[in-house]
Amino acid sequence: MPLDRAACAALDRDDPLAEFRDAFEIADGVIYLDGNSLGALPKATRQRLADVVAREWGGELIRGWNTAGWITLPQRVGAGIASLIGAEADEVIAADSTSVNLFKLATAALALRPGRRVIVTEPGNFPTDFYILQGVRDLLGGRVELRVVQPDRIEQALDADTALLLLTQVHYKTGRIHDMARLTAKAHAAGALALWDLSHSAGAIDVDLNAAGADLAVGCGYKYLNGGPGAPAFLYAARRHQAQLRSPLSGWMGHAAPFAFGDDYAPAPGIERMLCGTPPILGMAALEIGVGIMARADRRAVRAKSMALGDLFIRLVEESCPGQFILHSPRDAQARGSQVSFGHPEGYAIMQALIARGVIGDFRAPDVIRFGFAPLYVRYVDVYDAAAHLKDIMDSGAWQDAVYQTRGAVT
Amino acid sequence: MPLDRAACAALDRDDPLAEFRDAFEIADGVIYLDGNSLGALPKATRQRLADVVAREWGGELIRGWNTAGWITLPQRVGAGIASLIGAEADEVIAADSTSVNLFKLATAALALRPGRRVIVTEPGNFPTDFYILQGVRDLLGGRVELRVVQPDRIEQALDADTALLLLTQVHYKTGRIHDMARLTAKAHAAGALALWDLSHSAGAIDVDLNAAGADLAVGCGYKYLNGGPGAPAFLYAARRHQAQLRSPLSGWMGHAAPFAFGDDYAPAPGIERMLCGTPPILGMAALEIGVGIMARADRRAVRAKSMALGDLFIRLVEESCPGQFILHSPRDAQARGSQVSFGHPEGYAIMQALIARGVIGDFRAPDVIRFGFAPLYVRYVDVYDAAAHLKDIMDSGAWQDAVYQTRGAVT
Repeated sequence: MPLDRAACAALDRDDPLAEFRDAFEIADGVIYLDGNSLGALPKATRQRLADVVAREWGGELIRGWNTAGWITLPQRVGAGIASLIGAEADEVIAADSTSVNLFKLATAALALRPGRRVIVTEPGNFPTDFYILQGVRDLLGGRVELRVVQPDRIEQALDADTALLLLTQVHYKTGRIHDMARLTAKAHAAGALALWDLSHSAGAIDVDLNAAGADLAVGCGYKYLNGGPGAPAFLYAARRHQAQLRSPLSGWMGHAAPFAFGDDYAPAPGIERMLCGTPPILGMAALEIGVGIMARADRRAVRAKSMALGDLFIRLVEESCPGQFILHSPRDAQARGSQVSFGHPEGYAIMQALIARGVIGDFRAPDVIRFGFAPLYVRYVDVYDAAAHLKDIMDSGAWQDAVYQTRGAVT
Repeated sequence: MPLDRAACAALDRDDPLAEFRDAFEIADGVIYLDGNSLGALPKATRQRLADVVAREWGGELIRGWNTAGWITLPQRVGAGIASLIGAEADEVIAADSTSVNLFKLATAALALRPGRRVIVTEPGNFPTDFYILQGVRDLLGGRVELRVVQPDRIEQALDADTALLLLTQVHYKTGRIHDMARLTAKAHAAGALALWDLSHSAGAIDVDLNAAGADLAVGCGYKYLNGGPGAPAFLYAARRHQAQLRSPLSGWMGHAAPFAFGDDYAPAPGIERMLCGTPPILGMAALEIGVGIMARADRRAVRAKSMALGDLFIRLVEESCPGQFILHSPRDAQARGSQVSFGHPEGYAIMQALIARGVIGDFRAPDVIRFGFAPLYVRYVDVYDAAAHLKDIMDSGAWQDAVYQTRGAVT
């Protein structure tokens, strides 16, 4: 592994994904290491959104639902995402937010396991997963018990009362990867279902839901899928469960015949039954562009580069700032998502100083600075330069001047 | 009331809202009478979306949550909508879809009325309202009973078991207006809460939630608020209820401190607690433009023109096509929303023939042709010309050639 900038530039020249960087808008002077929180803007999205607004909405008006294909966007985008996560095209649909989709699937899973009331999950992961489970528990009262256990106790926590295991595959803060296949098999051995949150894994690491035997999944459209701020999320339901799966959010777009305007709810036959309200077309159109770019990239090359970028950053930071940061991410790239997190008591100020220099990562309480490496647009030289900036900030004490101005960022 | 085109043109010249038409893109040759289903494109939205995409997302990247004010868009848009529906700025927030918001508020209302299990509603209205209630009932089992009664039986159906009255203020098909103040008072007299769906009333008729004493409300962003296809919806909760109101969809954006990333859910103090996932910024930005235009219009002028356009259309159709259509909407403009519906056994083909001529309304099974009159961009001459096209289609039998090609349209 090279440690000088010229060697990094050579890696970029040999990068089989190098051409993809040009598909994104990255401003001069910006090193964007927060694609795990909000993916960068694909250049094609500008034109596509202008077209959706002016030609489709402005020109077609209500006819756009048919003539512009709006009505099938959730399925089309879902099919594209399916190709990234080891699912069949008819097992994934784009809809609502990750949080709303978690609610749908967690409640639906409970109904698939009558007589079982326990949901097993872990503490300290991305909060909305746990918040949603608390909402489910509070709504359903005694019918639900949350069993919250540390990662190393998950297997023992699965028992004959367990309806569902809900885990995030890649930890939002540390990047630690759960073994989806093994934990899903353990859940199944206990008679439970497994629901995976892919928010930090879809588009970032190899995900193969069907090979792992996963039952249900949700994920985020605005991180590695580059769908834009607050992009629609997605959900997956294995085909074998779809006929029995009922969404508690039984809105009209999940109806078997939404335009018949009948009084009685009858769920659509397939994954469409998990839709609820009218799909957000502007967001769906943007997400379709992002997913389309990711779908054209070789998945093995994406993962290989992701690991290499993370390894490079860890090595550079540890060599240039020895003893100053605690690595919070797995050192083993195979066990790590496409992000690297370091701990430092002054992490917040250090990240502000980096951002002031155009090196955009983010901070997570209490002390974590987090760097995401989106392989489609982050270069080896970016990693080199980011580490050099970090060293300079630490050596000069520049972080002490950092302005405490941002309220926070959306993961 | 004049019946020749010149007189209609004179009405347009005197129209105090005439200037607003230029704020919208309406293609030459199109008479758009479906703004009750999908509002027209505001010209300013093109530039605003281009700016959100290129400058805010592309340029600011993750920083946009703060620097571009994305994080407060739901509140800002909600405050704008509040000004249209007789609510305080902190009583309304833009979020999710109408269907999802109905689920949140219906379940939250049940919790506010412990010991009561009945939700009273009417059949035959826009289906998603009823579908969502069926989902709530199925999820909560014996804790909920739906009491579905014809409109003239609503008052008698409210009793000591009633937790909630849920009604759509303006009927999606006929345009009939419910008396919100009277029915809310009746609900309160029975000890129940009242939840109003404003999808076909916000921006179309005078809505005064607080004067009516309404407890809760939801509504649609893509009809008269011109927010674009699948725009975010909104919800209202009277200030007196907010501290007790709990959303079952307890996602991270409804948390008191979403960026603290703590494990335990604690709802935000105000209306923000009804947020769930990350807000859809592209849709929110477009909705903000539409709401902003509507907020600049004089509400009394909007309602007066709405009634005049509907009256004119009814008169023209009945005089030019005598005995051919059955008026499904209230004849009294005071009792009618901003739309007029006629019944005809060949309604579907007739509407297709109209659309082929650029007169865009829509069809609702089994026999209803529906015409919406968005007062900001529909002119008196448009109404005149639409009626003339309808007469010509009926006189010539042109509707018999209409192509049966569209699958349906989104209300």
